[in-house]
Amino acid sequence: MERKVILYIAASIDGYIATPDDNLDFLSTVEQEGEDYGYSEFVKTVDTVIVGRKTYDKVLNMGYDFPHADKESYIITRTPKPPIGNIQFYIGSLSELLTKLKNQPGKNIFIDGGAEIVNLLMKDNLIDQFCISVIPVFLGEGIRLFNDGRPPLSLKFIKSQSFASGLVQTWYEKQ
Amino acid sequence: MERKVILYIAASIDGYIATPDDNLDFLSTVEQEGEDYGYSEFVKTVDTVIVGRKTYDKVLNMGYDFPHADKESYIITRTPKPPIGNIQFYIGSLSELLTKLKNQPGKNIFIDGGAEIVNLLMKDNLIDQFCISVIPVFLGEGIRLFNDGRPPLSLKFIKSQSFASGLVQTWYEKQ
Repeated sequence: MERKVILYIAASIDGYIATPDDNLDFLSTVEQEGEDYGYSEFVKTVDTVIVGRKTYDKVLNMGYDFPHADKESYIITRTPKPPIGNIQFYIGSLSELLTKLKNQPGKNIFIDGGAEIVNLLMKDNLIDQFCISVIPVFLGEGIRLFNDGRPPLSLKFIKSQSFASGLVQTWYEKQ
Repeated sequence: MERKVILYIAASIDGYIATPDDNLDFLSTVEQEGEDYGYSEFVKTVDTVIVGRKTYDKVLNMGYDFPHADKESYIITRTPKPPIGNIQFYIGSLSELLTKLKNQPGKNIFIDGGAEIVNLLMKDNLIDQFCISVIPVFLGEGIRLFNDGRPPLSLKFIKSQSFASGLVQTWYEKQ
């Protein structure tokens, strides 16, 4: 089976992944003890992670360690930088990187955001599966998950699940 | 029980209610014989319909009769026009209209679009329930259901249901 490129991401009902000042506090409204919304199971299916440089920096600036240091990780950036362990700073073409990775054996490939990476990949139709977790809030404004200027695409619905917190998680895949 | 103001609307996964040229063909991808996604049951719970003028004109221009002629209908417009049966062309303040209607006895009030009306109402926090049906397509660009510049709002999740076509319908209400 070919490796899949999977976008696994959370958004507000109105389609934002962060507030205008890049705040993610809305995610905490669905934090419940013992409920990870399938995340740990999902992470077992991937061995490679692709993240935009801004998102990567944001995680570090929030005081966290990069959570995927055990996986082959590519930080998509315009500024070359030497690798840190498994973490490579990638300045080349995203579609070339994905094509190369998909031709190698391995588990699935996790697209961990941010919006810039998602929209670049969607323009080239490079995402195989989408898992979108909708948090039951309106942010009102902010950083949109989906920008204008992508091609239209019909998807195959896989499954949808709602949780006690009101989070609704839906999986789609490319047809 | 107070009458509820309910937004009942369909959107693409990427949050558009129409293409840039106002085309709604994507809705037909979920048309299935014998499946109306709860619409006829929903319509029984309302006796008043609020529609933006552009959406109203669009329905007529597509060759349809206005589908809510049996209900008290308000077409929100800037151009005064005499009523047609139960259909009134309303040029006043939306929030005054809603406040007046909610103080009258009656069934629920159906917000039938378009985006301009939805965003005006959300700015004043005038929508009590939201039923959003997500069609399993990306339009890529178009007329967004939710524009920037609304206040943030936490919602109460009511229910979510997926259908064989891949449509996922989720109900939320104001807390």
